[in-house]
Amino acid sequence: MPTIPDSHLDLLERPLFGHFATLGRSGEPNVNPIWFRWDGEYCWFTTSTRRRKHSNVRRDSRAALAVHDPESPYRYLELRGRVERVEPDPGVELFLALAARYGIPDAGIPDDAADRVRLGLKPTHITFQ
Amino acid sequence: MPTIPDSHLDLLERPLFGHFATLGRSGEPNVNPIWFRWDGEYCWFTTSTRRRKHSNVRRDSRAALAVHDPESPYRYLELRGRVERVEPDPGVELFLALAARYGIPDAGIPDDAADRVRLGLKPTHITFQ
Repeated sequence: MPTIPDSHLDLLERPLFGHFATLGRSGEPNVNPIWFRWDGEYCWFTTSTRRRKHSNVRRDSRAALAVHDPESPYRYLELRGRVERVEPDPGVELFLALAARYGIPDAGIPDDAADRVRLGLKPTHITFQ
Repeated sequence: MPTIPDSHLDLLERPLFGHFATLGRSGEPNVNPIWFRWDGEYCWFTTSTRRRKHSNVRRDSRAALAVHDPESPYRYLELRGRVERVEPDPGVELFLALAARYGIPDAGIPDDAADRVRLGLKPTHITFQ
């Protein structure tokens, strides 16, 4: 596994929005802003089985995440790899942890709790500037 | 061509950073922050023939751009389509226009001017929230 450079680790630790790229049905790129949490091995996202992100990574697990520093926007980090983990999260632990990380400590249980899943992206390549 | 919803057109008009997703050599997603300018038909980017973005879109023109509102980060717009235009820009007009748009009016001629190209993404699908 590649090492996150110390100079850019803050981009994964701070509650910044990421941009998550996946592959659509025909292999075309899709990209959306996303909450994330980095655990040192996986970058975790919350979604639901009704969302395109989920169907995309089930079909083809290749994905990438870019995070740039809003205070210094030419600093960025890109993680590329595979979503190796797709796990049910009906108790929405990850959803609630991410909501709190992104400033919504009282998010409550979302309507789609039963369909909630967590996606774990394991990076195999890193680019940064 | 799809119409940009009036509610989200500001995301293309304001000098916000976009995140541009392309396909790498094996069809895997790549994503990076990027300057852009929207002309009502194409979304334009500056790059150079030495950069991965250029080789990616020459190999497979499918691409996507996401822009979110830093002041209201759950508002975003995604354009998906093809980079139909890849044009030399040795006079770096687009580079200088984008530099000025993004707050660097005195950018000057970049070292890689001879290799500068402009990429024009024509959207075929739009998603927004």
